[in-house]
Amino acid sequence: MSEAKKLQAHPDRLFPAEANARAAAREIYAGVKDLPIISPHGHVPIQWLTYDIPFSDPTSLLITPDHYVNRMMHANGVPLSELGVGVPAGSMSEADNRRAFKHLCSHWKDYYGTPVRFWLESELVEIFGITTVPSAETSDAIYDQINAALATDAYRPRALWDRFKIEFIATTDDPCDSLDDHVKLANDPAWKGRAVPTFRPDRYLEPARADWVSLVGDLGRVADVDTGSYDGYVEAMRLRRLYFKERGAVSTDHSHVDAGTLRLDLSEARRIYADALRGQASPEECHALQRHLLNDQARLAVEDGLVMTLHPAVVRNHHQPTFEKYGADVGADIPMSVEFARGLQPMLNDYGTAEGFHLVVFTMDETVYSRELAPLAGFYPSVYVGAPWWFIDEADAISRFRRSVTGAAGFTRTSGFIDDTRAYLSIPARHDMSRRLDCGYLGNLVAEHRLTLDEAVDVAYDLVVTQPKKVFKL
Amino acid sequence: MSEAKKLQAHPDRLFPAEANARAAAREIYAGVKDLPIISPHGHVPIQWLTYDIPFSDPTSLLITPDHYVNRMMHANGVPLSELGVGVPAGSMSEADNRRAFKHLCSHWKDYYGTPVRFWLESELVEIFGITTVPSAETSDAIYDQINAALATDAYRPRALWDRFKIEFIATTDDPCDSLDDHVKLANDPAWKGRAVPTFRPDRYLEPARADWVSLVGDLGRVADVDTGSYDGYVEAMRLRRLYFKERGAVSTDHSHVDAGTLRLDLSEARRIYADALRGQASPEECHALQRHLLNDQARLAVEDGLVMTLHPAVVRNHHQPTFEKYGADVGADIPMSVEFARGLQPMLNDYGTAEGFHLVVFTMDETVYSRELAPLAGFYPSVYVGAPWWFIDEADAISRFRRSVTGAAGFTRTSGFIDDTRAYLSIPARHDMSRRLDCGYLGNLVAEHRLTLDEAVDVAYDLVVTQPKKVFKL
Amino acid sequence: MSEAKKLQAHPDRLFPAEANARAAAREIYAGVKDLPIISPHGHVPIQWLTYDIPFSDPTSLLITPDHYVNRMMHANGVPLSELGVGVPAGSMSEADNRRAFKHLCSHWKDYYGTPVRFWLESELVEIFGITTVPSAETSDAIYDQINAALATDAYRPRALWDRFKIEFIATTDDPCDSLDDHVKLANDPAWKGRAVPTFRPDRYLEPARADWVSLVGDLGRVADVDTGSYDGYVEAMRLRRLYFKERGAVSTDHSHVDAGTLRLDLSEARRIYADALRGQASPEECHALQRHLLNDQARLAVEDGLVMTLHPAVVRNHHQPTFEKYGADVGADIPMSVEFARGLQPMLNDYGTAEGFHLVVFTMDETVYSRELAPLAGFYPSVYVGAPWWFIDEADAISRFRRSVTGAAGFTRTSGFIDDTRAYLSIPARHDMSRRLDCGYLGNLVAEHRLTLDEAVDVAYDLVVTQPKKVFKL
Repeated sequence: MSEAKKLQAHPDRLFPAEANARAAAREIYAGVKDLPIISPHGHVPIQWLTYDIPFSDPTSLLITPDHYVNRMMHANGVPLSELGVGVPAGSMSEADNRRAFKHLCSHWKDYYGTPVRFWLESELVEIFGITTVPSAETSDAIYDQINAALATDAYRPRALWDRFKIEFIATTDDPCDSLDDHVKLANDPAWKGRAVPTFRPDRYLEPARADWVSLVGDLGRVADVDTGSYDGYVEAMRLRRLYFKERGAVSTDHSHVDAGTLRLDLSEARRIYADALRGQASPEECHALQRHLLNDQARLAVEDGLVMTLHPAVVRNHHQPTFEKYGADVGADIPMSVEFARGLQPMLNDYGTAEGFHLVVFTMDETVYSRELAPLAGFYPSVYVGAPWWFIDEADAISRFRRSVTGAAGFTRTSGFIDDTRAYLSIPARHDMSRRLDCGYLGNLVAEHRLTLDEAVDVAYDLVVTQPKKVFKL
Repeated sequence: MSEAKKLQAHPDRLFPAEANARAAAREIYAGVKDLPIISPHGHVPIQWLTYDIPFSDPTSLLITPDHYVNRMMHANGVPLSELGVGVPAGSMSEADNRRAFKHLCSHWKDYYGTPVRFWLESELVEIFGITTVPSAETSDAIYDQINAALATDAYRPRALWDRFKIEFIATTDDPCDSLDDHVKLANDPAWKGRAVPTFRPDRYLEPARADWVSLVGDLGRVADVDTGSYDGYVEAMRLRRLYFKERGAVSTDHSHVDAGTLRLDLSEARRIYADALRGQASPEECHALQRHLLNDQARLAVEDGLVMTLHPAVVRNHHQPTFEKYGADVGADIPMSVEFARGLQPMLNDYGTAEGFHLVVFTMDETVYSRELAPLAGFYPSVYVGAPWWFIDEADAISRFRRSVTGAAGFTRTSGFIDDTRAYLSIPARHDMSRRLDCGYLGNLVAEHRLTLDEAVDVAYDLVVTQPKKVFKL
Repeated sequence: MSEAKKLQAHPDRLFPAEANARAAAREIYAGVKDLPIISPHGHVPIQWLTYDIPFSDPTSLLITPDHYVNRMMHANGVPLSELGVGVPAGSMSEADNRRAFKHLCSHWKDYYGTPVRFWLESELVEIFGITTVPSAETSDAIYDQINAALATDAYRPRALWDRFKIEFIATTDDPCDSLDDHVKLANDPAWKGRAVPTFRPDRYLEPARADWVSLVGDLGRVADVDTGSYDGYVEAMRLRRLYFKERGAVSTDHSHVDAGTLRLDLSEARRIYADALRGQASPEECHALQRHLLNDQARLAVEDGLVMTLHPAVVRNHHQPTFEKYGADVGADIPMSVEFARGLQPMLNDYGTAEGFHLVVFTMDETVYSRELAPLAGFYPSVYVGAPWWFIDEADAISRFRRSVTGAAGFTRTSGFIDDTRAYLSIPARHDMSRRLDCGYLGNLVAEHRLTLDEAVDVAYDLVVTQPKKVFKL
């Protein structure tokens, strides 16, 4: 085998190739490169921070929980089980972990041009000081180097929090969650950060689910309200939102099959709710009630001030056999087309100009950026265009995002970057990618004399600091 | 406060950053920069020209009538009423106007990256000689400078017409309009320009409207035909189109909820029409009749030679409370997805290859450019792809437009630029933006050796002169 | 008239303008420029190769069979009949051919910015050594020069095959075709190439067609199976696929109105099939059966190993009068929007992870690249994103393709280039365009430090050689 190739994270990576745009991008980036990370939506387990749990090994840290990493290997022939997916926690031997890690390194080429390449490259170089390109041959050495680092205190979650300059993070949590670990963390005198819960009630809004009656019962129990009636359900929701807010939550998060909203007559809502509890509501009625209940979250948001985020239109668990074998969230969700202009109209007619209401809309269907989302955000004081995430959280799509929404929404109607990740070590790389690409977009505007350099520097700061703080009321 | 920043309209603005492409763009642009403006579709009030009415103040000129400007401030928290929207004409005091203008200047940053920034920058620098960047601090001085200019004859509509080198303009008019002001203008010996009406019959084609029966009655009265029957309606339409044509009109303009067309049997059309007049047609029948009537406009177009323009698929007055308070056309229209391939098929089967028929199709749903519009225009001799307008009349979308349609439609199947505006002072800036971006696109083709510089220079001229003249039969 | 302008095929054409990206693109391209052509899907008549039939004249070679060329002239006013379309073979006089060729040369400008311009320029310069730009004035001389070349042995199909360095080509064939000419060619000791059939059963899967009963009867006869029952039909399909496979076929090709698939109960499939044969199945049942039969092709593919390619969602013969006068495939097909995520779900649930199953999905609706196809191909081991073809087989769309799919699918989940053409002489130019654009995309990645030059060189080779061989099992 030839000498192992040197792994590099080039200082100019992701900047525009053209010299003037790049020079501007570099200067703009210098102003935001080292700013703290604000992460208003993500999936990091709060326990990592509360208990500062050391990471056990490279595989369970970098591979198993990251469906971006796993899905590509799966597509290229690696069984998910060999990556630790669906395997009982702790049952992977060191040999298993090494094999999984070798799979990743052997499949390095499959990630060319994908964001995983950028993230992992940044993580390996900047967090672990790895200097060789991953390959079957270099896999064990890289594994060892990471493993050794993880054994040190410098690589425990809280130490990394400081190293990553994280200022704010939000987790995603079930309405029935006690949030004890959040409270414990917040009350820990040794903890100086801010890590808050997010209210994610999707399942409780979907009467067509087989487990809805049971969920609604749980909701009533934790809220100490009888959810046997619609009015009780609404009160329980109100109380649980407040419970979350009192424990630091700033937002609620919602994902249904589409973006439809509507306002049922109260009597109709009560009737369908009652029928749904008895399993006697039709699919159409269940769908109508879900749309009404989503709309009602906006009503509650106007009342309690929590920011509402929306990201509809994904086929969850697209491959049934994989779902049955490995469960949800293993990379088999597939986006579909979405419609916002008419879907959100009922809700925006009710609350679109309500004082203090904030609605951040995410999409993976890029066609709505210029067609619907930028026009909506460019009119409604409540609407913000959410940053591209999930499948479109990658260099080319992020660039398209700015080129699609800025014309009709400018910069002040966008959310700021959202990392949406459970891959803790990728957080700095994800924010860095976003900063680099936004600076590249701004650098291009400068090079095309659409903004002055001063203005671009100002905007870049806003995108990293002002916008997320304003939009998420931090 | 620091010294006011200098406002600039850079000579290279909007050109590609890359040196070879920019050099080519500059050279191509030199050939079209000063060519007269041809504006085949817009919304300038004809009275401004007929009576050469002086503009009264900066706010009612630059802010109140321009929903692009207002909607962004509304999104960022400024009440529309403070911008003069929905306020009775003449009721804004000078203090009100100054406050509105200060809102605009204070919100300058919200327009970064939007076309409003480009238009206003160009207008302020090139029309008014403003040299400071708008801000709360500079607002009054800028207001004063514009106000002083507006008091001079050089800033009256006809003087600006000459200064702007406008060769042709079309207004948008109701079929029942007498067009007296158009005739008066055309007969004014002091007037050397060409400003013609456009036939815009949307409302008369929509039997589901509450006011349709009344509208159809009006149509009959002005046409002096009994529209109590379908045949009378058709004859009235025919006559009013001719009435417009005799008064200079070159085109008719159509916007419905979708692009559907169909051909009903005559007996069926008569029956539904009669039922609709009695308020007894079903929603489905009304929709079918609208699609039939739109198709029938194409039949009439083949007969009288008026060019047909189409721009469907917008949710009008998306926010009902705003509509109730401020009325239509205040920036609350939101685009939606559109389908042309099957929708236009019945009409194109009837008239797609008819001698002299011209159909210009506009969209705000960019997805149809490469998928449907360019393929249609690349086959049917009647179909032309309309320039991007309204929400997508901005730098990045205009660039996408050429990159989306040229492959399947080339340049000769596109409409030439359409400004579609009621903001009279923005007309030169809008055409200039289009010219710069087309030259930039062409400059890129030259730099990538896809066209020679000679060919690109030739195409640029065609896009500014040949295409609009050919497509709109000027 | 001025001196005829010099026709050039610039060595850097289609490369990025920016210097660093271009330098990288050049270097990457040097590695793939002269590699053999692998063409896994196209429409070249096998007889040209089997009998090495000389091409008779420039018009019937370059114009008549190429709907890309004809449709644009038709849009610009040239009757299709004057281009030889719909005219009985051999009935065009030399004067007719010259006139058609003059049409093309006179309309040269209509092709600016289109792929036809690139292809013809490359063909004229590189295959025929033409040095003047086509125009009305130069038309006859160019015609003469091509005509003279065609009379020589060097321009017969097999000589051109060698000159073009074609390694593999697939034709497209009816399931009832005997494939005798394929067999004869394969058995010709003088023939060293590989030209194989493709199984294209669309019509046999569409029970709603007026000629379906007759088609199914034909299928039974050639397969020697009674297709009077569903089971017989399935067996006939199985046998004909094997018949094709034994004669070299590597893939089957499928195009229906949408991408819907489903699995009917066997009893239901049998019942609908029987009803359809008697003309008593409803349109809904026919549609369901078609979706089931398409799904069943996947089942057969898992069994026999033939690669399945899919390209749904085109309005065929959009203009009925043209269809009646000139027949199908004359440039009047118009793409429409398509949905894959839910449409393919039943089939992918059945066979998405089946050993050896390969499904290549093509689209002309670009919106699905980032939204559905890249996510599907980035999870399912069976799914590959097909290269852009037909209307979007042009420079800007090809560039968009890579920028849309690479983020979620990388390079290893894409098909490699597909020329899909019956224009034999355009094959090298089409593959060259693809190579140039892929190298340009890679050159940009290098210039933006997203890939190293070594990695990019490696990927370019894979896209030209490794991917098509792997995906199509060559």
